[in-house]
Amino acid sequence: MANQSNRRVLLARRPDGPLSRDCFQVETSQCSTLEDGQLLIEANCLSIDAFIRTVMYEEAYHGSVPVGGTLVALGVGRVLESRSPEFEAGDGVFGPIGAQTHAVVPASLFRKVDESVAPLRAWVGALGVTTGLTAYFGIRAVGCVQPGETVVVSAAAGAVGSVAAQIARIDGGRVIGIAGGPDKCRFLTEELGLDGAVDYKSDDVEGALRELAPDGVDVYFDNVGGELLDVVLDQIREKARIVICGAISQYESMESVRGPSLYLRLAERHARMEGFAVNFFETRYGEAQRELSIWLKRGELVMHEHVFSGIDQFPEALLAMFSGGHRGKLIVEP
Amino acid sequence: MANQSNRRVLLARRPDGPLSRDCFQVETSQCSTLEDGQLLIEANCLSIDAFIRTVMYEEAYHGSVPVGGTLVALGVGRVLESRSPEFEAGDGVFGPIGAQTHAVVPASLFRKVDESVAPLRAWVGALGVTTGLTAYFGIRAVGCVQPGETVVVSAAAGAVGSVAAQIARIDGGRVIGIAGGPDKCRFLTEELGLDGAVDYKSDDVEGALRELAPDGVDVYFDNVGGELLDVVLDQIREKARIVICGAISQYESMESVRGPSLYLRLAERHARMEGFAVNFFETRYGEAQRELSIWLKRGELVMHEHVFSGIDQFPEALLAMFSGGHRGKLIVEP
Repeated sequence: MANQSNRRVLLARRPDGPLSRDCFQVETSQCSTLEDGQLLIEANCLSIDAFIRTVMYEEAYHGSVPVGGTLVALGVGRVLESRSPEFEAGDGVFGPIGAQTHAVVPASLFRKVDESVAPLRAWVGALGVTTGLTAYFGIRAVGCVQPGETVVVSAAAGAVGSVAAQIARIDGGRVIGIAGGPDKCRFLTEELGLDGAVDYKSDDVEGALRELAPDGVDVYFDNVGGELLDVVLDQIREKARIVICGAISQYESMESVRGPSLYLRLAERHARMEGFAVNFFETRYGEAQRELSIWLKRGELVMHEHVFSGIDQFPEALLAMFSGGHRGKLIVEP
Repeated sequence: MANQSNRRVLLARRPDGPLSRDCFQVETSQCSTLEDGQLLIEANCLSIDAFIRTVMYEEAYHGSVPVGGTLVALGVGRVLESRSPEFEAGDGVFGPIGAQTHAVVPASLFRKVDESVAPLRAWVGALGVTTGLTAYFGIRAVGCVQPGETVVVSAAAGAVGSVAAQIARIDGGRVIGIAGGPDKCRFLTEELGLDGAVDYKSDDVEGALRELAPDGVDVYFDNVGGELLDVVLDQIREKARIVICGAISQYESMESVRGPSLYLRLAERHARMEGFAVNFFETRYGEAQRELSIWLKRGELVMHEHVFSGIDQFPEALLAMFSGGHRGKLIVEP
């Protein structure tokens, strides 16, 4: 296995405003020789996540990628060679593979996945940390959706949003998804079984929401931020919970994030806005993955995938996340 | 008691930007004759509260005062004449007296106060709905301060802030108050016994706070909003609670409130921002007032008063609330 060739995506330059193709460079190199405690992994599915965009900045919450460095990416892969007693060739693993076809990595950063619970690719999607688990803890532990409550999910046709909306539905909520375009809205009501959908691109969002949720909103699962957050804040009910999962509308200019100017509605309505990152719930991943896998098997939970083939497509896949044309989980199969 | 003369403060014109003296007019009139279910009250202490400013707008959360109408104000007074079976002359009462020396009011809007628990004037201050009770529920029920936690209170020399800071101290918090000017800061540490004070007018607030709270902020009791909210958001710890009580920095231009642009810190640190209005806790007023009265008697809780004498001073007192020159509770003794 020495001299395994690797194709990888580098950060060519830091983005300055919207992401563009020339921020990336794809090149072929050789993997280094394994040292003790390392694994050689062949990537199987790479997860496209918003945080990849944020680490392209000079300073970012999740750390920063140096110019010339391999872009970060979580993914599942298979062990080709192991110098760790805990892994052997053939194991399916999940962890920070990076935007590349192969990786020599510290075994300590990877977890073996149980393919009898769900197929390998599900561990980046419906059971994945950045998708299924994020949605699960956002709805269950932060939003605390109760049966009969009205739940609104933004970016509801996206990876996290589509799972969050479905869990809220499973938990007995009346769920309204917000997405861009009639196709996505049909996807929400027909394929995901939501109670309503608002097309932010063509509807009068404020009016459409008021019509679908005449008594107001109990839980808002927000992945978008910006103006939409204010529109929903204006329609929250007493004791509402706003779950701050992300703010994809703001990631391209993190220096000038638009704060919610209607945040005083929280005081008027005794409501709360609570943020979270999935890693705060690390001790509960197993429990959540078991429940998610059962819903998946029963078909109660649908994980739509949008697949890009070939590592060279990685930049396109990341651009797609921000242009918002996709439905469900963006995956790169290297 | 017929033809009781009354001096009252009217809304002469709606404010357009900062409050000014010509928004008000003071005039003398006669009280109407009592009807069944009404009381004639002589005002004893009127409470100056930020909401008085907000109801001067055309449309406001707390309702609106018509131009030419008597300004609203909560206060304590004594019943001069009663046509309600539940009250008699001499009773001390609390309720919406209005900005006037005398008032003919529906008895149903007033509550008798127990002067054996605390003197009449305490029922607009340390035990009052807009002051003591607001502070109490903000710290106890929303902030949930735990012993050893670091608590920051903005407008800490003000009425609500000074009580909130002291309750947080009583509950075992390390309390840092933010106020304007060295006199107020001395008041916080020397008279209220807080652990630290930051002068927002002269200190580098960000740096001063980082020095006083090197491990970050667990609870922020916010009465100010604006830029300061972002400064504190940047320094919150994991699982922090931000209590949104008010936003006095924003009340002069409610159409263009500045939202907290660092609200995504909530997600990064699994923190929450929760708002409240005191009336959501109405069923617990009695319990809270008992506890507050015990602290008052023991001297653990100090209620500093800033008194304006004469109803003609009501506009000055309200202007003082927004210019921020006072310490403690602003009271008008008509």
